[in-house]
Amino acid sequence: MSECIFCRIAAKEIPATIVYEDDETLVFMDIGPIIKGHALVISKKHYDPVTDTPDEIVAKLHVVAKKIAKAQMNGLGADGVNIMQNNGKASGQEVPHIHVHVIPRYNDDGHHWNWNAGTYDDFEEMKILAEKMRKQF
Amino acid sequence: MSECIFCRIAAKEIPATIVYEDDETLVFMDIGPIIKGHALVISKKHYDPVTDTPDEIVAKLHVVAKKIAKAQMNGLGADGVNIMQNNGKASGQEVPHIHVHVIPRYNDDGHHWNWNAGTYDDFEEMKILAEKMRKQF
Repeated sequence: MSECIFCRIAAKEIPATIVYEDDETLVFMDIGPIIKGHALVISKKHYDPVTDTPDEIVAKLHVVAKKIAKAQMNGLGADGVNIMQNNGKASGQEVPHIHVHVIPRYNDDGHHWNWNAGTYDDFEEMKILAEKMRKQF
Repeated sequence: MSECIFCRIAAKEIPATIVYEDDETLVFMDIGPIIKGHALVISKKHYDPVTDTPDEIVAKLHVVAKKIAKAQMNGLGADGVNIMQNNGKASGQEVPHIHVHVIPRYNDDGHHWNWNAGTYDDFEEMKILAEKMRKQF
């Protein structure tokens, strides 16, 4: 038996309120919702983080997330949707099994992400970071 | 000339620090980074929100986001990465042209998402919301 809670949910060893399922993905309700209706799209097979997940699974998870976003807008009347995929403890990820948060948002829901946009000391600093990334391709 | 700032960046009418480019997507540095190294993956063609974006573009944007996440880990030494795609003003989206935030995270970066997990009044309440979404498929 796996010790990964999301593997156990995928195997139906732990119950969850399922929203959608296909061969590769499972969608269920997050029991600690940022906003009610918050759902998680997971890969049935264990992968983590995104950089170790096959491209076709990354693609599939997000096409399913789009489907869920549509259902939140049309079925729950959401005004907007956050789609978020966290990788690593440093990012706030809690369960190390790839999952995509799909969070319905309403104009009056009172949630505000702490989006503390920073700045660069100068243009050169930003260019150097971009160059370090480009060297990886 | 388009009035959409991301369309103008894609058309190279407005300069940006480009990290990656292919036929369908462009990646450039966010000048207001949550954490330095923060990049944006956009579709060159204008779509918004995700629910009006073709599946193949949604898939492509996130496969490219994975590539950028890898470059942030290997090139910038990031310990983790947040990948976030916001839809609608209610979600915090500022530019209404589909884009994926790829944010490098470090164990000591001091940023904490205000992840105020809520609860459901009871199991039934959660089940009803799931059912409303399922009816959309």
